[in-house]
Amino acid sequence: MQTDNLLKQISFIKEIDKIKYIQRKTKLFNSDRPENDAEHSWHLALMTLVLAEHSDTPVDVLKVVKMVLIHDIVEIDAGDTFIYDTVKNHTNTDEELNAARRIFGLLPEEQSEEMIALWQEFEAGETNEAKFAKSMDRLEPLLQNTSNDGGTWKEFEVDYQKVFDKKKVIRDSSATLWKYAENLINESVEKGILKKKND
Amino acid sequence: MQTDNLLKQISFIKEIDKIKYIQRKTKLFNSDRPENDAEHSWHLALMTLVLAEHSDTPVDVLKVVKMVLIHDIVEIDAGDTFIYDTVKNHTNTDEELNAARRIFGLLPEEQSEEMIALWQEFEAGETNEAKFAKSMDRLEPLLQNTSNDGGTWKEFEVDYQKVFDKKKVIRDSSATLWKYAENLINESVEKGILKKKND
Repeated sequence: MQTDNLLKQISFIKEIDKIKYIQRKTKLFNSDRPENDAEHSWHLALMTLVLAEHSDTPVDVLKVVKMVLIHDIVEIDAGDTFIYDTVKNHTNTDEELNAARRIFGLLPEEQSEEMIALWQEFEAGETNEAKFAKSMDRLEPLLQNTSNDGGTWKEFEVDYQKVFDKKKVIRDSSATLWKYAENLINESVEKGILKKKND
Repeated sequence: MQTDNLLKQISFIKEIDKIKYIQRKTKLFNSDRPENDAEHSWHLALMTLVLAEHSDTPVDVLKVVKMVLIHDIVEIDAGDTFIYDTVKNHTNTDEELNAARRIFGLLPEEQSEEMIALWQEFEAGETNEAKFAKSMDRLEPLLQNTSNDGGTWKEFEVDYQKVFDKKKVIRDSSATLWKYAENLINESVEKGILKKKND
């Protein structure tokens, strides 16, 4: 049984290597090299470890770390959807659910169910852990774009209101992080690297 | 105080982005593209989550995950040393300790001390958590090289005995994982992708 489990786990471990080829729109800090999903997920996990103390409510840190480590694995089948995409909404598509079932389904049943449940909890964004995980997912590209002279905001002509609307989920998990994020957004407008619609 | 902490944490978060540029010798699965330290660390964290049940002794999973997520951050200053390097031994060099002090030192004092202690515990390899973390660090390139027709073993003419000596730390944490790893090594010799010295 233990060996049977191990073989399933190894096939999962090999499969998820593919996440390293999935490029995001956002670039590394001070760079024009796109970040891939594995790098992004690693960064969110580290951010969780050092920023968890700012959550307004206590969170189970291991659970948040698990969520951010696995949150993009479905993109192996479903691909990365740009958060400001106006045609395709990435949330809760059947494609992503099928991807979760196939990829996490490589694992032994109990682990597979745990991973799918964690991913769904993250996507729903209702628990304290999911809210904090989503904050990390919003904060990293904000730090990147402000380090990259506007980054994807400039590249894809994303305006202040759209950025504000996406980033405000940070407010649901941490007043401290939101205050910092809101300041960064406002400073970006002042610097001219983020435009208001009628600018 | 909270804001002071946050600014220190943000500077750490920006600094560690540099790990994404540090290339390892080992290649991605079924690929000739080298893996970088962020991708490697992400993969070890996922491996920890799914393989922890095979540890011979119960381990604190969050602690192991933290260790593998941070274990290569010192390489931002000290660089990656190939595990089969015959000139430079990467373990416990002053260079790495100085790197740990500088980089983790960007964090608020309490977190900085925790991270340095975690990294030192990993390097010492004596606790159950450090042993399991080291097993993950040895197992991933074993899976990669066997998926890559010998990979770095062939490229750098590393023989069976050297591989066996490096991989046997897996035995210290998990009989199940060691049995699997030893089989993989023996199969590699049979396939001719890993040579014995006198072959």
